Amino acid sequence: MNYILRDENAVYYECGYSSDNALYLRLGSEAWLITDSRYTVEAKEAVRGAEVVEASDLLKAARALLRRHHVRRLVYDPKEWSAAAMEGLMRKLPHLYFHPQPAFSHRKRMVKSDAEIALLKRAAELGREGFDRFAQVVRERGIGEREKRLHFEAKAAMSHHGEYDLSFDPIVAVNANAAKPHALPTEVRLAKGDLLLVDAGLKYRRYCSDRTRTAYVDETLRFEEEQRFASARIQKAYDLVRKAHDRAIERARPGMTGAQIDRLAREVIEEGGMGEAFVHSTGHGVGLDIHEMPVISKRSDTVVEAGMVFTIEPGVYFPGEFGIRIEDMVVMREDRVEIL
Amino acid sequence: MNYILRDENAVYYECGYSSDNALYLRLGSEAWLITDSRYTVEAKEAVRGAEVVEASDLLKAARALLRRHHVRRLVYDPKEWSAAAMEGLMRKLPHLYFHPQPAFSHRKRMVKSDAEIALLKRAAELGREGFDRFAQVVRERGIGEREKRLHFEAKAAMSHHGEYDLSFDPIVAVNANAAKPHALPTEVRLAKGDLLLVDAGLKYRRYCSDRTRTAYVDETLRFEEEQRFASARIQKAYDLVRKAHDRAIERARPGMTGAQIDRLAREVIEEGGMGEAFVHSTGHGVGLDIHEMPVISKRSDTVVEAGMVFTIEPGVYFPGEFGIRIEDMVVMREDRVEIL
Repeated sequence: MNYILRDENAVYYECGYSSDNALYLRLGSEAWLITDSRYTVEAKEAVRGAEVVEASDLLKAARALLRRHHVRRLVYDPKEWSAAAMEGLMRKLPHLYFHPQPAFSHRKRMVKSDAEIALLKRAAELGREGFDRFAQVVRERGIGEREKRLHFEAKAAMSHHGEYDLSFDPIVAVNANAAKPHALPTEVRLAKGDLLLVDAGLKYRRYCSDRTRTAYVDETLRFEEEQRFASARIQKAYDLVRKAHDRAIERARPGMTGAQIDRLAREVIEEGGMGEAFVHSTGHGVGLDIHEMPVISKRSDTVVEAGMVFTIEPGVYFPGEFGIRIEDMVVMREDRVEIL
Repeated sequence: MNYILRDENAVYYECGYSSDNALYLRLGSEAWLITDSRYTVEAKEAVRGAEVVEASDLLKAARALLRRHHVRRLVYDPKEWSAAAMEGLMRKLPHLYFHPQPAFSHRKRMVKSDAEIALLKRAAELGREGFDRFAQVVRERGIGEREKRLHFEAKAAMSHHGEYDLSFDPIVAVNANAAKPHALPTEVRLAKGDLLLVDAGLKYRRYCSDRTRTAYVDETLRFEEEQRFASARIQKAYDLVRKAHDRAIERARPGMTGAQIDRLAREVIEEGGMGEAFVHSTGHGVGLDIHEMPVISKRSDTVVEAGMVFTIEPGVYFPGEFGIRIEDMVVMREDRVEIL
């Protein structure tokens, strides 16, 4: 099979190396990593199973290889390529059929190897430590602080003060702001008795963690599943989300579709009368990218197999009031899922 | 003129609002901002000169407008669009001619308004304050710290502890690492007598700052142009880069091309015998994006006019030894440039 990749994580997955300016080309059993002179020294040390090609014009180098090997058909992911790059490549190779396969690399990466699962497990552990560090900051000096400053402190804590890259810009949302699934930090100040939602992750050797906790704010704050809110209404919603989260983790089995696993969580929330407040999917795959396959949603017909890593993250959102989400990363094993 | 934009800053420039999921469509004198339900409340408050359209499928909403107005020709920037999105749009509108114009929005944005220059000036001021904050951190506790931790501290200082977004991931490079124009932070520890290169910027109301200083490290460290290095060889290179930087700022005039301004800096370094060590362009435009037009490079035939904002950043790099760069943002006025 012949294919070309340009997404940084897709390229890394194939050959163990990538840069912000690299292409990976595979033609049958031969492969090339094409990058510019800033990166070739590192590339030659790190690349496995591919020849490193140095080029100032990566597309031109790829075209030369495609011509030399008389390639007639090449798979690419049209979401990875800009219209400009693809148009240039196609126009200059009129006899080559470019076969679009959206999510081509994500499909290959869906089932993780044991080595990848170990890295994701370590990322998840370090991510939990980041949450613990942030909890300490909130306990010690967070009450009275602005959401914006708390967001900064969350980035500091989650990155272990710069030791790890973050897998995404964290969400740190108080009370009504937590009702927006993609909240941006505001000038609102955190007070004792508030609800605090934190969705954050880090990268360990390029592999992402992802976790969400919703906590009751006082001097004993911890990002554990067990939470006691002062408001009975919030507690009721919290307990329902927790039940949905735990149920999906308990009952998910290999061979189920994404939709069936989504159903496990969703039916708990629907039965509790809050189905309309659960406005998103139950989960998504995690790996080198923070969003990978499988999708765990109402319409996902992907069969979930052993070795797939994904999130379970039910939530309920009441605009103007509050929002709750509880999220963990899991790996599907031979019999059931294991929390990473 | 009819055009469609999807880049977040390009859309913001047109109508004063954008989100991570928005399209801007202009057909003659009418315009639309198309976004999803998460953003329409904010959009309706902020958008100027365009009608807000709420849609779950943005491309479908754009196609409906294009059909209703019987549009025959539409300008787009092929670098903004993925091959997948453009293919979908084109295939479903076979009678519409899509006219590719790379950098279409950047060309429009090249000459800044007075209001934009005021925002860029404020960004530059706040950026300098960020450098001062970071200098203080280095003086107080930076000597002996790892480059990686210094990089984290630079992000904290430059963002004013989370008050401002950064315009890019800062470069913080010690000695030989400064010889790589795009250095990544390492485990190297900063010592007294070292050379420290810092390239960093922040965003003020979406407008970017960009600045570089190279400093001699001791307890009096400051990111000023005036620097005294212990090594005569480093001092000689530093003085040459400083002279090139100052000369370009002093002699740049409206009506010169980018290449002519590049020449002003480059000839100083060539005459000093270090031409081969100046491996990049003299500068680039700055605005909503950190890299805009005009390009100030050997081959740039763009005529630099009053109102254009760009960097002047000559540098010399000696692999394995050290690197030096001095960068400021300037605006071209009626007679000469002014440092922002």
